[in-house]
Amino acid sequence: MTTPWNQRYAQRMERMGSSAIRELLKLTQRQGLISFAGGLPAPELFPVKQFDEASRRVLAEHGSQALQYSTTEGYLPLRQYIVDKMSAYGIEADVDNILITSGSQQALDIIGKILINPGDKILTESPTYLGALQAWRAYQADFVTVPTDDDGLCLDYLEEALCAGPKFMYILPNFQNPGGFTLSRERREELIDVADHYGCPIIEDDPYGELRFEGEHIPPLVVLDAQKLNGNGHSFKHGNVIYMSTFSKTLAPGLRLAWMVAPRDVIQNCVMAKQGMDLHTSSINQMIAYEVAKDGFLKEHVRLIRRVYRERRDVMLNAMSAHFPPGVSWTRPEGGLFLWVRLPEGMDAAHILEGAIAQNVAFVPGVAFHPDGDGRNTMRLNFSNAQPEMIELGIQRLGQVLAAELVY
Amino acid sequence: MTTPWNQRYAQRMERMGSSAIRELLKLTQRQGLISFAGGLPAPELFPVKQFDEASRRVLAEHGSQALQYSTTEGYLPLRQYIVDKMSAYGIEADVDNILITSGSQQALDIIGKILINPGDKILTESPTYLGALQAWRAYQADFVTVPTDDDGLCLDYLEEALCAGPKFMYILPNFQNPGGFTLSRERREELIDVADHYGCPIIEDDPYGELRFEGEHIPPLVVLDAQKLNGNGHSFKHGNVIYMSTFSKTLAPGLRLAWMVAPRDVIQNCVMAKQGMDLHTSSINQMIAYEVAKDGFLKEHVRLIRRVYRERRDVMLNAMSAHFPPGVSWTRPEGGLFLWVRLPEGMDAAHILEGAIAQNVAFVPGVAFHPDGDGRNTMRLNFSNAQPEMIELGIQRLGQVLAAELVY
Repeated sequence: MTTPWNQRYAQRMERMGSSAIRELLKLTQRQGLISFAGGLPAPELFPVKQFDEASRRVLAEHGSQALQYSTTEGYLPLRQYIVDKMSAYGIEADVDNILITSGSQQALDIIGKILINPGDKILTESPTYLGALQAWRAYQADFVTVPTDDDGLCLDYLEEALCAGPKFMYILPNFQNPGGFTLSRERREELIDVADHYGCPIIEDDPYGELRFEGEHIPPLVVLDAQKLNGNGHSFKHGNVIYMSTFSKTLAPGLRLAWMVAPRDVIQNCVMAKQGMDLHTSSINQMIAYEVAKDGFLKEHVRLIRRVYRERRDVMLNAMSAHFPPGVSWTRPEGGLFLWVRLPEGMDAAHILEGAIAQNVAFVPGVAFHPDGDGRNTMRLNFSNAQPEMIELGIQRLGQVLAAELVY
Repeated sequence: MTTPWNQRYAQRMERMGSSAIRELLKLTQRQGLISFAGGLPAPELFPVKQFDEASRRVLAEHGSQALQYSTTEGYLPLRQYIVDKMSAYGIEADVDNILITSGSQQALDIIGKILINPGDKILTESPTYLGALQAWRAYQADFVTVPTDDDGLCLDYLEEALCAGPKFMYILPNFQNPGGFTLSRERREELIDVADHYGCPIIEDDPYGELRFEGEHIPPLVVLDAQKLNGNGHSFKHGNVIYMSTFSKTLAPGLRLAWMVAPRDVIQNCVMAKQGMDLHTSSINQMIAYEVAKDGFLKEHVRLIRRVYRERRDVMLNAMSAHFPPGVSWTRPEGGLFLWVRLPEGMDAAHILEGAIAQNVAFVPGVAFHPDGDGRNTMRLNFSNAQPEMIELGIQRLGQVLAAELVY
């Protein structure tokens, strides 16, 4: 009996390894388990009624268009909506600078496809987003990392990493996944200068930027870069930054809708790549998202999300203060979905996870977010998905597991 | 002013070239032009009312689930629905043999990702589907082609092509895009034997199989292969074939919903790849498609599509008989969306297209479907999208362009 597949898998499959996120998402489905592991939005906030009304309207008024093939670039009114959003940040993009993608994960895959040759080095923060590592390992990339602290990327280590000649650097400036920290304004400006000096492009991933609970908005890297290169409030002809964001954390992830903002020639190459990847993103989802988002609803809705997530973050922070043993420290994010916990040196969060699951609570061991295998004593906690009383209970349980382990 | 992108694009971008389908799809949007160029379903047949009802039901009963992240493998009831569909063909797959993809184009991209190393040879029919060439050129594949006639792949040339050592072969057995021909039962059985002998896996792309207007159903290659390897009606543990099909031609392409059927270990690798590509296919679209398709509606709806497309095919065939000059020949497809036209040797369909567009009618020059640059005297005509009276008018115009060219 021949099974011709085994000998035929591409070399890149060796790098892709087992699918950590996927195994973790499976955990979150176990009955009765309090999960801080996923990165799921609060489902009770999804604007179901608005989706219902929007989809009726779209099907009644544009049914054939919504169900038909559409262009790879994306639904024009939605791209225009994003142009206006970027304009509010201070960057004059036009629709030719915008590509709609099937979630941010596809934007990461597109970036890999157009930029990465096998063996290319990619500069990332340490820790960094697991999905980016997964997407780019499939292109046989290697990773060069720069440490982070409570203000984000430590610029003292940046130039040394840049000397390795990375193809681009990947930065999550706001309420970083997994770290929860935010890159300060001063560091953003310096980062732009250094990147420019070394001619190293930046991929700026900003899924949570709109979910700031407190403190002042800091302009995205793409804005600071465009202001430097093109002058204030002017065109977006040139740029060292590809900016990406998503509707997954503000509207709903089940739609798979995100976008990239980049110089026109970069977008043209992305479009060519995306065409071979899925032709285009769901027509009907783009039209419904536009119907829901326009006329100010999304802006209003984001205020609600901020309020609820802020409360959950506070519940988690207070519970950690009450229940976590001494020697454990954590970040205090000003927005987003995640907290980052540091255990005493020598403790292994993967081992803690086993004990936690036995107590029906879960998180992600931080080592998964380190391309270099560091971070064994760290863990990521999500605070957006569970209700406040479950957060309190889950942190209490986790505190007991940690305390028992520290006594040992 | 630095623009760091130009020097940084990956080597694979050289292969991807200009995006032929995309430029062609743009043509189809010109006002007043009768387009036989695209591969668009008839939009007036989209079951808009059923989508409206289904989406209300899904949002009312499972709103949170529909808008939330979901698993990479796909929505379980939809996968079960596909298991039943495959079972009707005579193959006992289970849900672990099924992966939902974001359109067939993503299935092609996944196949490239898990199987193709740069320089690998892929065996295709000549002509073959442009989207597959586009997806796999991005993995720096080379192509080995086998000629076709009115019964599909010419097996006399197959073994020579197999001696080139292709990684896999890519076959569209039913109402082929672009050729319109169908691989005969005899050739399918022989193909399975030869592929098995050479240990060469088969990718079977079957987007149109359900749209048979006349003649008898012929079992898919995946079924013949499984019967040979596993015995009649038995399990699907082993297999040399990855089968793929789509809801784009039966329900609606705007959803971006397709599926792959393969041995479990192949599906596991596909899932790992897809996770890095878009995490998962839109939750809400999968749930709505299931709601629309279940309880027999899709089966009934496909009967309507067959009736309408059959009529349009007949109108096109009759118009061609009436208006095309002598020396031009064409296929008579028993189903699907496309006709294939052969002009006299030495004529250039790309040149004809220029004249056609001046007369407000369009098609795709056949050379685009030949990895080897052959087929300059061929053209693909789509008959599913235009109304019968427009088909008549468009073929009349095209006949005039051809006649003028032949007189020259």
